[in-house]
Amino acid sequence: MQLLRVNMDRLTVESQDLGDAYGSWAGRGLIARLLSDEVPAACDPLGPQNKLVVTNGLLAGTRTSSAGRLSVGAKSPLTLGIKEANAGGVMGDAMARQGVRAIVVEGTAPTESLYLLEIGAAGARLLPADDLRGLGTYAVAAELLQRYGDKAALACIGPAGELRLPLAGVAVNDREGRPSRFAGRGGMGAVMGAKNLKAIVVLPDAPGDAPIHDMAAFREARKRLNEALRSNPVTGRLFADLGTAMSLDIVRALGGMPICNFSRGDSDGELPYFTGDGFRQLIVDRGGEGTPTHACMPGCAIRCSNVFPDSEGTEIVGPLEYESLVLLGPNLGLFDVDQIARLNYLCNDYGVDTMEAGVALGVALEAGLASFGDYEAIVALLDEVPRGTVVGRVLGNGATVAGRVLGVTRVPAVKGQGMAAYDPRAVKGFGVTYATSTMGADHTAGYVMGAQVDHHSPVGAAQLSRKTQVLRAALDTINLCAFVMSALMDKPDILPDLINAVHGTDYGPGFVGELGEAVLASELAFNAAAGITVLDDRLPEFMRTEALPPQDVVFDVPQEELDSLLRTDCESSMQITGGTP
Amino acid sequence: MQLLRVNMDRLTVESQDLGDAYGSWAGRGLIARLLSDEVPAACDPLGPQNKLVVTNGLLAGTRTSSAGRLSVGAKSPLTLGIKEANAGGVMGDAMARQGVRAIVVEGTAPTESLYLLEIGAAGARLLPADDLRGLGTYAVAAELLQRYGDKAALACIGPAGELRLPLAGVAVNDREGRPSRFAGRGGMGAVMGAKNLKAIVVLPDAPGDAPIHDMAAFREARKRLNEALRSNPVTGRLFADLGTAMSLDIVRALGGMPICNFSRGDSDGELPYFTGDGFRQLIVDRGGEGTPTHACMPGCAIRCSNVFPDSEGTEIVGPLEYESLVLLGPNLGLFDVDQIARLNYLCNDYGVDTMEAGVALGVALEAGLASFGDYEAIVALLDEVPRGTVVGRVLGNGATVAGRVLGVTRVPAVKGQGMAAYDPRAVKGFGVTYATSTMGADHTAGYVMGAQVDHHSPVGAAQLSRKTQVLRAALDTINLCAFVMSALMDKPDILPDLINAVHGTDYGPGFVGELGEAVLASELAFNAAAGITVLDDRLPEFMRTEALPPQDVVFDVPQEELDSLLRTDCESSMQITGGTP
Repeated sequence: MQLLRVNMDRLTVESQDLGDAYGSWAGRGLIARLLSDEVPAACDPLGPQNKLVVTNGLLAGTRTSSAGRLSVGAKSPLTLGIKEANAGGVMGDAMARQGVRAIVVEGTAPTESLYLLEIGAAGARLLPADDLRGLGTYAVAAELLQRYGDKAALACIGPAGELRLPLAGVAVNDREGRPSRFAGRGGMGAVMGAKNLKAIVVLPDAPGDAPIHDMAAFREARKRLNEALRSNPVTGRLFADLGTAMSLDIVRALGGMPICNFSRGDSDGELPYFTGDGFRQLIVDRGGEGTPTHACMPGCAIRCSNVFPDSEGTEIVGPLEYESLVLLGPNLGLFDVDQIARLNYLCNDYGVDTMEAGVALGVALEAGLASFGDYEAIVALLDEVPRGTVVGRVLGNGATVAGRVLGVTRVPAVKGQGMAAYDPRAVKGFGVTYATSTMGADHTAGYVMGAQVDHHSPVGAAQLSRKTQVLRAALDTINLCAFVMSALMDKPDILPDLINAVHGTDYGPGFVGELGEAVLASELAFNAAAGITVLDDRLPEFMRTEALPPQDVVFDVPQEELDSLLRTDCESSMQITGGTP
Repeated sequence: MQLLRVNMDRLTVESQDLGDAYGSWAGRGLIARLLSDEVPAACDPLGPQNKLVVTNGLLAGTRTSSAGRLSVGAKSPLTLGIKEANAGGVMGDAMARQGVRAIVVEGTAPTESLYLLEIGAAGARLLPADDLRGLGTYAVAAELLQRYGDKAALACIGPAGELRLPLAGVAVNDREGRPSRFAGRGGMGAVMGAKNLKAIVVLPDAPGDAPIHDMAAFREARKRLNEALRSNPVTGRLFADLGTAMSLDIVRALGGMPICNFSRGDSDGELPYFTGDGFRQLIVDRGGEGTPTHACMPGCAIRCSNVFPDSEGTEIVGPLEYESLVLLGPNLGLFDVDQIARLNYLCNDYGVDTMEAGVALGVALEAGLASFGDYEAIVALLDEVPRGTVVGRVLGNGATVAGRVLGVTRVPAVKGQGMAAYDPRAVKGFGVTYATSTMGADHTAGYVMGAQVDHHSPVGAAQLSRKTQVLRAALDTINLCAFVMSALMDKPDILPDLINAVHGTDYGPGFVGELGEAVLASELAFNAAAGITVLDDRLPEFMRTEALPPQDVVFDVPQEELDSLLRTDCESSMQITGGTP
């Protein structure tokens, strides 16, 4: 597989073999390695020394279910540490079919011109893209799919990315062309904007799938994967039925659904659409296309995604995920699902992370810039972002900076990044993940909700988080969708068998754990060199002192358990048995 | 001497003896000790765990020239590290005459009410002060001097402090009642505002001077001090003649006077009032009161201060110091001294640091919020600060946050604090001080301009800065005005003799150096515990790459010399010979 070096100073693209050093790395792990090797950790994330890495996973392009996720990484302008954000959609597989494992975007364009990176069977090249300046992601997608055909894969930024705002994400198109699968978190869109790169297009002219070392072994292992996905109730039915909205039931039972800037954990009133079944039924009743769920990536067996229609059955936005539904909804005092879906559409079009936008807006409402629940005023605030006004820039710098500027101390964020839609007072393991993750307050970095434990109890929360953080670091390196986890927990041989079949490696059942530990160690080292200390591994103080109604829980995992959590074992386990990684 | 504990939770004031632990500490050193002992370094600087320490010096109230400066300290909301800012005026001596060495303000008022701390011969008490809410410092001073008599000493905050904005300072009145001597830097006014303390008044009913252990020895040593001040050309004549404006000549000769957000180091055109003599002559020609210089503290032999009149001889502001003149002037593209004086008056009245305001406004102009040189637009921007608008809050958070929000990478600041009016590319030692000081980009923390060296050369700049940083840490603990330095460099026995005479200690000629090292070590330890690392000891990248016209200098002191500068010797020298400190 190839690595494309895109130099924005010279406007050149060079293809190089991944070689021995990076040969069997991918995704989040490859990002950690490339950044550690090539980016000064203390650099300005929006300056020429930072690099944007766009990469697929070890099984991309092989027609393995759920294996086509795309990772985007760089030093983050939001957390000021290392960042990997990943998205579904069609880009990851498309790159692999063109023989491309990773794109490394370096330097800064010498002029203010925007560029488009085109990758096809004939090679890769940079093209002027000033005609796309200022366009929202939906207009960019419409224009590029018109130009390149609707089977093209694309990743692009909206106006927020062009403005280099740290809440800007990178949009990837789904199978139907919507630019709505987001590598959202940590400002990867701002870094792409700082490189003056508006979009990447991969043409659908690849000669075939990604190469496979041992096809017979691969087919056998893939069969076991599919069977595992099918037979597990979560991956086989629940996700397809309810999508990520299934989280509503668990989170509300724990009293941990953020309402009005994390000041309540559930509503007193009835919220019929804020249950897994209720939300599903609304979509079904409205009779939109692709309801209740569909697949964001070709060949995905889980099909957790949805398309949300209005009362006439016309699509408002697709998907409307749990995180966006809550952070742009109840967290802002909004309970009208149509309004929330429209906010989500605006976020997508402006190219901003729905989660950081939701948390930053919650802080702005607490500061009094508008009232909780005032939809029109909230839209007006969000509209400031793509206009680049001072208010828009305050929001565009994310919840932590907005809180500092606006004088708000109740800021639900860690390492400069807003929390996901699980109040950590009600789900202690998430608090540990938010606090200690190399990524800031990220739920995907260590997703604990699947565990059958008392999530209100601080006992064991730290070790649960640690275990999931290791696992997620590995999955995000293989770029397998995290939703396969529940199906593979008791089948540790499937993943190494698949990877060995594709790459000719000799990984054993310990591979996933070793890989995760190695990736975390590398990320921790980068963050330390960037000036992030153990003092940054803390939840905001109010979450330890302010009880969250209605279940009146506080965050009570001892700080000592957080301080040592990742720093103890990780740094000594850089070796992976059976090959490199 | 007494320490007053002012508890804003309980609204109580308790007097306690300084005791053995703090007995002969004062000023910056006492702040470092109290904060290290009592304030969690990682706390929210605007939260209840931070403490505001207001303290005079070891010679305050003894009628020693230049020894009445007032230190204000806390964890800084601007730098997020330890902070001590000091000011002239009458408060330091007045506190000492009432037997008070320090005031420690703790907790947060339970309500939104504002309070006034009154200190007199009958004791100290908190009084409601909601009638002062929103008032500028001049109105506060007028009201309180009316109420308590014009010999009262006061320290107060303006609307910026009430808004808890990190560019808010603490204003101290001078002998004529102007609230224009500022403990300006690092947001001490915001911390005072966060305690809901609007003002401190010391009544002029003290029974006498501060106690002196050996009056004969004291008189003898003071005589030597006065003779040294008189016979030195700088302290004996130049300061009284030219005031701090004398810096203009040296800085312009080096090409280091910041113009238009540190993008030039001198103007192409004639600037007749931007010379020591030209500025003095303007004041003399206009015939105002107290021209060209006067004393900010009773009994000061140096008399460096001025009062700046308009063309009718009517006072615009007093003083107009070098730093304010340049950072609110050429740095904003303004060269009309009357306009600059009016900006200075507004800063004083709003209770903001003229320096942070000047640097933050320079960044805002670079971002395009107004044009360099557009006085009316600049006034309009500054007026946003006391109104607490979003733009005002962006500026009110200082240059670094403003730069981040507004997308400006050329931000002349270190550790979150804007630089003083010396471009470090032209005065290398200041670059070292800015980068390595425990205080952020502070000129007073290590003032190198007095040294007879090639300030363009990086050679020796680090050691020069280190020497001055140690000296300044000691002087700011004794609370002797730093301007005495030049007179005492070759007379190391005068200061220990004075202090021994007052306190009965037995310090030798090495005292000042030992004291400075001990204070720096304590501050470094606090900052480390607050999460500040060696990576924060850096100038902004553009100063190493962008040559400063017209003399085309860059900052070229090797980073390795900065990284190890304070961290090597300091931490091993906590012992002071001859007593405690």
